[in-house]
Amino acid sequence: MRDPARRLAAEALGTGFLLATVVGSGIMAERLAGGNEAVALLGNTIPTGAILFVLITVLGPVSGAHLNPAVTLAFALRRDLPAGLAVGYVAAQIAGGLAGMLAAHTMFDLPLFQVSQTVRSGAAQGFAEVVATFGLVFTILGTLATRPALVAAAVGLYITAAYWFTASTSFANPAVTIARSFTDTFSGIRPIDAPLFIAAQVVGAVVAVVVAGWLLRRRPA
Amino acid sequence: MRDPARRLAAEALGTGFLLATVVGSGIMAERLAGGNEAVALLGNTIPTGAILFVLITVLGPVSGAHLNPAVTLAFALRRDLPAGLAVGYVAAQIAGGLAGMLAAHTMFDLPLFQVSQTVRSGAAQGFAEVVATFGLVFTILGTLATRPALVAAAVGLYITAAYWFTASTSFANPAVTIARSFTDTFSGIRPIDAPLFIAAQVVGAVVAVVVAGWLLRRRPA
Amino acid sequence: MRDPARRLAAEALGTGFLLATVVGSGIMAERLAGGNEAVALLGNTIPTGAILFVLITVLGPVSGAHLNPAVTLAFALRRDLPAGLAVGYVAAQIAGGLAGMLAAHTMFDLPLFQVSQTVRSGAAQGFAEVVATFGLVFTILGTLATRPALVAAAVGLYITAAYWFTASTSFANPAVTIARSFTDTFSGIRPIDAPLFIAAQVVGAVVAVVVAGWLLRRRPA
Amino acid sequence: MRDPARRLAAEALGTGFLLATVVGSGIMAERLAGGNEAVALLGNTIPTGAILFVLITVLGPVSGAHLNPAVTLAFALRRDLPAGLAVGYVAAQIAGGLAGMLAAHTMFDLPLFQVSQTVRSGAAQGFAEVVATFGLVFTILGTLATRPALVAAAVGLYITAAYWFTASTSFANPAVTIARSFTDTFSGIRPIDAPLFIAAQVVGAVVAVVVAGWLLRRRPA
Repeated sequence: MRDPARRLAAEALGTGFLLATVVGSGIMAERLAGGNEAVALLGNTIPTGAILFVLITVLGPVSGAHLNPAVTLAFALRRDLPAGLAVGYVAAQIAGGLAGMLAAHTMFDLPLFQVSQTVRSGAAQGFAEVVATFGLVFTILGTLATRPALVAAAVGLYITAAYWFTASTSFANPAVTIARSFTDTFSGIRPIDAPLFIAAQVVGAVVAVVVAGWLLRRRPA
Repeated sequence: MRDPARRLAAEALGTGFLLATVVGSGIMAERLAGGNEAVALLGNTIPTGAILFVLITVLGPVSGAHLNPAVTLAFALRRDLPAGLAVGYVAAQIAGGLAGMLAAHTMFDLPLFQVSQTVRSGAAQGFAEVVATFGLVFTILGTLATRPALVAAAVGLYITAAYWFTASTSFANPAVTIARSFTDTFSGIRPIDAPLFIAAQVVGAVVAVVVAGWLLRRRPA
Repeated sequence: MRDPARRLAAEALGTGFLLATVVGSGIMAERLAGGNEAVALLGNTIPTGAILFVLITVLGPVSGAHLNPAVTLAFALRRDLPAGLAVGYVAAQIAGGLAGMLAAHTMFDLPLFQVSQTVRSGAAQGFAEVVATFGLVFTILGTLATRPALVAAAVGLYITAAYWFTASTSFANPAVTIARSFTDTFSGIRPIDAPLFIAAQVVGAVVAVVVAGWLLRRRPA
Repeated sequence: MRDPARRLAAEALGTGFLLATVVGSGIMAERLAGGNEAVALLGNTIPTGAILFVLITVLGPVSGAHLNPAVTLAFALRRDLPAGLAVGYVAAQIAGGLAGMLAAHTMFDLPLFQVSQTVRSGAAQGFAEVVATFGLVFTILGTLATRPALVAAAVGLYITAAYWFTASTSFANPAVTIARSFTDTFSGIRPIDAPLFIAAQVVGAVVAVVVAGWLLRRRPA
């Protein structure tokens, strides 16, 4: 790990590239898919899984490559990260995510500032985000525990799966949720629907810390 | 490996996520694919292969991550697992699989309890399940023998292939077959067709144990 | 490596699974793709690349997992394999490939014995097979020279690419070519067109041995 | 690394296969996709990402497998490569790329010499190329710094993502840009639009060298 300035810069840069990919590939995929939404989702899924492998491989040694406030919360709860630095991580992730979304709008020549109209609400969607974030945080904690060299591959492939098996397409990340509420494109979510998603993500992360703390502990109680 | 309670929990949790992925991505893929079944199967295949890599990577060190009664049978036949624990594994896999299927229905806001109407019968389908399960168990035994770090990748990619090259789309797993008989969605199978599939899977697993026992043995007889 | 009987059995079994995958996924993909040939080719490509990774990972330690007479020829030319054993390898590959094709027909409930009507002829197709096989053999020799643990991934991904960048969809394998001339499905080739393909594959393999012998040699002349 | 003659040959051969894949798979994908451009782009993306993994794995030990003048520029700026050899690399890459494009035309039985009519212009496209090339060079420098065994996977997956998240489909390579201006097929770019792309690629590479030099430095200043 590097000094705090580099760590925060890595979190901002990485979350920026993540959002540029999620938003940008969504725009590209929808434009080209001719109305076949499954093809569009494939064109959104494959790039997202791929860039997660890249970002975690490259930035992991700098900051841990959380790129996600729910992940930072999990590490803070486990006392793997001081609370003060965790707050900085979250701020960097949110700022970086917004910048990445703006970069996608710029690359595709769209208005910079938008508000999503895409409805994503209801208990089923909330439950889906709990499951999605539980799985993501459990994957990270489990892989780190015994096969740390595989975290990047495991996270990239977990999200590849979760885009399809959760009804919400697995946001699983509060910084991603915030940034996606400001794009009225394929990957958007209405700002009014964001708080439920974020609350569900926090619940999922906390449950994952508890379950992983028991299931993955080396020595039985 | 951990104590039995954690091992059974890992088998249930892992098989649950596997079924949530198989059933959930099938629902999502069919909804979005606009009638193109090959696109729908891609949207079912890629998540399934991806989650298998993740689950085996994360849970392998806890329980071996069988997630499949046919695999547990193979290890029991080879005396790598005591019979009593094997029975527990199978029960945990079936219970977890049913729970995962219910979680998928919940996430997609569907009726919890369903019975599949999808016909999958006939000798050709049965033969396909023998081939599919033979290949899966042979892949696991072969990879474990000389390259254990690659089991997760090999299983994920084997199933990715087998969804397409077997006429049955490769269930290759009795716990998966049982759970899928209770979902009337893309991945379903009529309950009346399940016994043939399960019998064929057992045959395939036994043949794989025999063939692998000869072909992969280090020293010639 | 094992004794010759196990090595030949591994070559036959592996080439059988390769052909079952190529032919079977071609049938499945064409049936489901609703006339979109690019979707069908995706459904043929992804399983083929995936099964190659699996087969080379599992069978590599037994026989080297050539699964391809052009690859066996290359190793024989380099004197890495005795000529007598090489002949046995080629016979096992051809027999296994034919059996795998028959297994695919059985799984999909099709007539066992067929003759392909698919025209694949002309100089451009021949040139494509030279390029495809050159690239395949060069990939194998290059990876073995410095990163032998990556041969399975490199071959799987090379063929994934070559299905698309060569006009012939990259047979690159005489045993595959022979077996595919006896299936009148998506992946077939007219028997009368097979000799040109096989001749081109031999040329590509020989050129790869020569070029790799110079380019990858450790010490400059 | 080998002697200069082998290094230059590796750069030419590798860039040739890269262009044969980009141009060839574009032709194949467009022909088969029946007008669905997202399916066509998938059929162009997956082979390109796959072949990059293969080429960097096989040729990395020979020449470093830059296959890209922007990457060679980055290494020259960091003084990892003498200026004279860097000029040779760029020449080999451009020549190899043109040869690979001609090979694709030959395999698909198209006129060898073509001029692209595909318009790719404007500030948004230029910005996209800056982002794409920044990301590519940053990925390479970051992976080399701490996980050199993963460079091939990281580059293949980065380009897989970047084909979709950049509005320009991420050329990110001057040799690729030059060769693609001489094919009037799916992957083409008008020669008059090439200079903006190349200038943007140089800017992206230089910025990546500066940012990586700070962010990835082991010891804080």
